[in-house]
Amino acid sequence: MNTLLKECRHNPVLWLLAFVPVVFAAAKLKPEAHTLLFVLSVLAVVPLAALLSHATESVASRTGDAVGGLLNATLGNLTELVIALTALRAGQYMLVKASIAGAMVTNTLFMLGASFLLGGLKHHLQEYNRVSARVQAGLLFLATIALLVPSAVSQADSAVDAAFTQKLSVGLAVLLIVAYGLGMLFSLKTHRELFTSAKDGEVGETPWPIGLALGTLACVTVLVALVSEIFVESVQKAAEAFGMTQAFVGFIVVALVGGAAEMASAFSGARKNRLDLSVGIALGSASQIALFVAPVLVLLSYVMGPSPMDLQFWPGAVVMMLIATLTASLVTNSGRSAWFVGVLLLTVYLIFAMTLYLLPPRAQ
Amino acid sequence: MNTLLKECRHNPVLWLLAFVPVVFAAAKLKPEAHTLLFVLSVLAVVPLAALLSHATESVASRTGDAVGGLLNATLGNLTELVIALTALRAGQYMLVKASIAGAMVTNTLFMLGASFLLGGLKHHLQEYNRVSARVQAGLLFLATIALLVPSAVSQADSAVDAAFTQKLSVGLAVLLIVAYGLGMLFSLKTHRELFTSAKDGEVGETPWPIGLALGTLACVTVLVALVSEIFVESVQKAAEAFGMTQAFVGFIVVALVGGAAEMASAFSGARKNRLDLSVGIALGSASQIALFVAPVLVLLSYVMGPSPMDLQFWPGAVVMMLIATLTASLVTNSGRSAWFVGVLLLTVYLIFAMTLYLLPPRAQ
Amino acid sequence: MNTLLKECRHNPVLWLLAFVPVVFAAAKLKPEAHTLLFVLSVLAVVPLAALLSHATESVASRTGDAVGGLLNATLGNLTELVIALTALRAGQYMLVKASIAGAMVTNTLFMLGASFLLGGLKHHLQEYNRVSARVQAGLLFLATIALLVPSAVSQADSAVDAAFTQKLSVGLAVLLIVAYGLGMLFSLKTHRELFTSAKDGEVGETPWPIGLALGTLACVTVLVALVSEIFVESVQKAAEAFGMTQAFVGFIVVALVGGAAEMASAFSGARKNRLDLSVGIALGSASQIALFVAPVLVLLSYVMGPSPMDLQFWPGAVVMMLIATLTASLVTNSGRSAWFVGVLLLTVYLIFAMTLYLLPPRAQ
Repeated sequence: MNTLLKECRHNPVLWLLAFVPVVFAAAKLKPEAHTLLFVLSVLAVVPLAALLSHATESVASRTGDAVGGLLNATLGNLTELVIALTALRAGQYMLVKASIAGAMVTNTLFMLGASFLLGGLKHHLQEYNRVSARVQAGLLFLATIALLVPSAVSQADSAVDAAFTQKLSVGLAVLLIVAYGLGMLFSLKTHRELFTSAKDGEVGETPWPIGLALGTLACVTVLVALVSEIFVESVQKAAEAFGMTQAFVGFIVVALVGGAAEMASAFSGARKNRLDLSVGIALGSASQIALFVAPVLVLLSYVMGPSPMDLQFWPGAVVMMLIATLTASLVTNSGRSAWFVGVLLLTVYLIFAMTLYLLPPRAQ
Repeated sequence: MNTLLKECRHNPVLWLLAFVPVVFAAAKLKPEAHTLLFVLSVLAVVPLAALLSHATESVASRTGDAVGGLLNATLGNLTELVIALTALRAGQYMLVKASIAGAMVTNTLFMLGASFLLGGLKHHLQEYNRVSARVQAGLLFLATIALLVPSAVSQADSAVDAAFTQKLSVGLAVLLIVAYGLGMLFSLKTHRELFTSAKDGEVGETPWPIGLALGTLACVTVLVALVSEIFVESVQKAAEAFGMTQAFVGFIVVALVGGAAEMASAFSGARKNRLDLSVGIALGSASQIALFVAPVLVLLSYVMGPSPMDLQFWPGAVVMMLIATLTASLVTNSGRSAWFVGVLLLTVYLIFAMTLYLLPPRAQ
Repeated sequence: MNTLLKECRHNPVLWLLAFVPVVFAAAKLKPEAHTLLFVLSVLAVVPLAALLSHATESVASRTGDAVGGLLNATLGNLTELVIALTALRAGQYMLVKASIAGAMVTNTLFMLGASFLLGGLKHHLQEYNRVSARVQAGLLFLATIALLVPSAVSQADSAVDAAFTQKLSVGLAVLLIVAYGLGMLFSLKTHRELFTSAKDGEVGETPWPIGLALGTLACVTVLVALVSEIFVESVQKAAEAFGMTQAFVGFIVVALVGGAAEMASAFSGARKNRLDLSVGIALGSASQIALFVAPVLVLLSYVMGPSPMDLQFWPGAVVMMLIATLTASLVTNSGRSAWFVGVLLLTVYLIFAMTLYLLPPRAQ
């Protein structure tokens, strides 16, 4: 408890934890106040995500480098995974897919762009490890291709049916998880020296004792799951009330909420001129969503969902994922950054957000 | 007058100024001779564009670096802007869009490619400032994405209507102008040292006195506007007579005519082994069209046009702009050039020109 | 004969030559055993391709550098050309196009990826001449654009008819052959010093005497043509028997069979840490298919085929070619490789192969 209080003093976002009991109370007392529940659940998820992220890092730092890296890589997007699983169980596949696509686009464009901008406003020119950035961008590019193939084929070919898309999606999910595992083997084991500079940046905060960390991990995951349930139930009605399309909510709001904790780390890294850390978090998180979270959701949909989920996305989402990945590849190729590079990335993000916001509701 | 005559001796293209009175006389005497008027107006625009370009540079060089850079950046494509405004007022939105897309493609592929080829035939290997080229290519990439989003969304989504495309286009226009302004702040102010080598290349010709320059700027702009009117009226009939589609005329002919003056500077820079100058003109001009001219035309269509213009392009034009930008990004990544790189760019341009030339007329 | 026996001892794949008489006998005795004939013809083509490749290199090494380079460049994909010509004469344009697209994709993704993986498993980090790789990737990119334009335009534009696609395809074929010729001029003549490291790698095997080489070249070409005829006749029925779509056979099986000999050289180069050789073979072969074999087939279809062939591909194939080229461009940009880069390329290849395998038969 003492540690928690000390954390709160360090990290003001944790005061938002007060909204966790509030959202549960509100859900009991006013189950039809969708807009209120939506806002409260968003406010409650942000500090939970921050706790989850810190607990994961603490466990990771206590278990040695290889296991720790593995843990960080698999649990780093636990918030996104839990929210998506809740939507999956509710059969809201449209929301699941929008949040996968949105997390990829938000991490590559918004998180990376804002890091470059915030860092660039303080430091004239910033350098980072381009080898590591290239491997991450390569993984991301691969994942994007895998995710767009089912959509492209069924777009191009009217004779293609649901059974085909289904089989293809399962095959792709397995391929992506294998590629992700090999990528971890590469960056954590066989070629770890190429990724060093990104490593030592991460020892920013003091880790928690292992017991507290594990306990927090378990409790907070349950809390996130419960809050997500309220969030998923209220999101559709609330979106209508705000005049937002469901695509906008899944793509932009869920992605920003789920990634809030990582964004805080990425931005503070950029301000401290440790851009390796920021680029690593942004691209790493995006490729983790694409190569681990998305395929796991496809496979789990056979066990947990009302019906199997495929990887066929709305064509506009495919275009946005592809452009986001290409932009990130082109931008991180040089290993140098200035504020304007951030502006370029953020502008592309704004273009996408505006398009989704203006899109007529039926047109999702 | 004396200065003008001296200019003419230096720059033989100015003898074409004789066609300016000829085209006005012909328009009065033979208003139905569309093919003749088309040819005469093309011949008259070329020297006017050259004068306009020299006058802009002269004003810029007299007003100090920051204002001068700003002037150069906003008036550098004045010819294209005036021609497009004339077409806009006549409600020929198809021609306006074709000339925007065509100017982008012609500048990135033809102007850059011919510079690389002409320079490469004289110099074995040429180097240029790749940082500056990358920023320009980045801006161009961003602009292309913004321009293709409305087309991609309404292509993918049948529920999308004109009102959506309209709102989206205005939003994108504002975003692009802001990004353009920030880009100038970056290259002229905060990070100008990255762009130096491209700067000192530009002091080629002796600038005119400020009075002459301002006077020329005003007079020639009016003349270009008047000639453009004849051009826009005659182009459709003339295109039919030559067996050219309107897409070909807008994309290729207008772009080559409007950019003739800049091409002359870019090619002479390449021959003198100052490739920085050529790359700067080609990519700078292309991104200026995309980030400044196109959005200004969208916004002005509310004031000057018969109805608002959106940014929805013919899908083929979107593909061509995207490929042109990607090609330019990949090619300028290395900062080195040889003649064959020019051949590659020119071949892509020829492929596009041939496709547009062969396209059946109804299929634009 | 003696030399041939010595070769067989060196190169165990040549023992497969025994299948050449077997396939002819089987075709006479059991002309309806399509599956058997398919398997036998595949087994017979592999050693013939190896012989053809060695004979070409021997002739090339005896005729001096310039002519030799030219020979290597034009005859390097003789097997693919002969198979495609046989299919062309039989009017199987679908198979011809699938094998062109498949050879490009297989060479860029599978051959390059497997080289990187095999080399990377033995050597920690490998370096190669990135200038040469970039020129090859540039040529490939150009060719892909040329090949996709007819498909993109007729996809985007319903008013486009067969006559347009036909004329455009012939124009593109001529442009591609010219670009290919200029590319050879560049790499063999004007800028050969940029490509040196890839050159001296090639003197691996001892060349045959010129008489034997020329004789082998002539005889084996005839044999490949005869075996191809059996292959092309049996492939459709056999594909059905194996549950493979024709797209899968053309794209994957024909490409792997036709490229077997080059793959052997590329892989052995990678194991010997001469990655320049591997990258040169993989990208060179892919761009040769796109810039020389494909246009030659279009032009020859006017002479040899039942009707003219165009360059309009199935949209899925266009997407795959474009992604393969982009991936190769991004990957070879750095001039360094480790095993995981190979995994990335191979995964993209597997994604494509799986998609084509699962595609319902009518949907080609």
